[in-house]
Amino acid sequence: MGELKLQKMPSVRRLPTYLHKLMEMRRSGQDIVATPELARYMRCSEIAVRKDLAITGAAGQPGVGYKIKDVIDAIRSYLHWDVQCEAVLVGAGSLGAALMGYDGFEEYGLKILAAFDADPAKIGGTLHGRQIFDVTRLPELCRKLQVSLGIICVPAQYAQEVADLMVQGGVRGIWNFANVRLKVPDDVVVQREVIAGGLAELSVKLQYRGETQ
Amino acid sequence: MGELKLQKMPSVRRLPTYLHKLMEMRRSGQDIVATPELARYMRCSEIAVRKDLAITGAAGQPGVGYKIKDVIDAIRSYLHWDVQCEAVLVGAGSLGAALMGYDGFEEYGLKILAAFDADPAKIGGTLHGRQIFDVTRLPELCRKLQVSLGIICVPAQYAQEVADLMVQGGVRGIWNFANVRLKVPDDVVVQREVIAGGLAELSVKLQYRGETQ
Repeated sequence: MGELKLQKMPSVRRLPTYLHKLMEMRRSGQDIVATPELARYMRCSEIAVRKDLAITGAAGQPGVGYKIKDVIDAIRSYLHWDVQCEAVLVGAGSLGAALMGYDGFEEYGLKILAAFDADPAKIGGTLHGRQIFDVTRLPELCRKLQVSLGIICVPAQYAQEVADLMVQGGVRGIWNFANVRLKVPDDVVVQREVIAGGLAELSVKLQYRGETQ
Repeated sequence: MGELKLQKMPSVRRLPTYLHKLMEMRRSGQDIVATPELARYMRCSEIAVRKDLAITGAAGQPGVGYKIKDVIDAIRSYLHWDVQCEAVLVGAGSLGAALMGYDGFEEYGLKILAAFDADPAKIGGTLHGRQIFDVTRLPELCRKLQVSLGIICVPAQYAQEVADLMVQGGVRGIWNFANVRLKVPDDVVVQREVIAGGLAELSVKLQYRGETQ
């Protein structure tokens, strides 16, 4: 994946926002959306909307707009969210609980099957209806459940250890909420979420008011 | 804030990652960091490192690298993180608890003073050492505490109502974790966190392996 793809990432990050809005429009019976309407919602230019959606292959009709169903399908297909992705989550603390309890993920094709923790007081319990297993069983259960994705919600000092267990379990992608860079084999992909990244954006926007959401 | 600034946002989002690493290096006694070292850590090109850091005014010396202390100061000053920002948080659920419990924010100059909720069972209690107040007291207490930032962690259907109360309380910036766009006066800045944005990035990276973290 070269430099070109990297430059697309800001567009990729915005796709769930389009998707969420388009699904809302469809539920309310709307079939077509004009580019200016999307631009107003996203608080960006019409050109930016066209560029964002173009990466999915969705194309609008000049003077008409986008067929909502087509764009939804294009986004979901581009992100492979039309195929369900099964995941496990490690770290049954408050962040883990927040992610487990987030209904929206199923809309995005993500299903969290089980949670893991090292705390004996948590092991054997449940978190939002899913069982909490001993983290030492992570490789075995990842293989058995054939999950492709692991979500790390443990403190930074334990994150590498957890990542190693996930890799042993055959996980292909890691969504890392711990504030540390992970070392993984070349064929495993890591997405690091830096929550303070949003705070940095907000801080800069506060200095230059009237910014987009 | 024009298109130019918007294009800087991916760099802005990465600054906390640099800051965290640079502070770690400084704690371990390192004074100078070479650009290739930062590029390896960020998994990007040296040119990208220079571009990212240039927005803060930090400049490296050719053949030497960056003075770590200077870059830390430049990032913190650019983001106004050298001045403490006081915030309130609304929604004492698991996401609220996760944010309240995150030690890292103090490193970024953010101090969450209090939490608010509408649930009588939560009101009067504490969350990570801070008191939980009735959400109806939000405008009054925002003014009294003179907080500039409000963090929204309530379900989407309540988010606008909470934002209105924050605006009444004189909040200047809103960090919105609810999956909905907020309507606020022009002089209030909103940063919307779309957690699925990271999932979208991960999904695309899984299709093009060997990507940066």
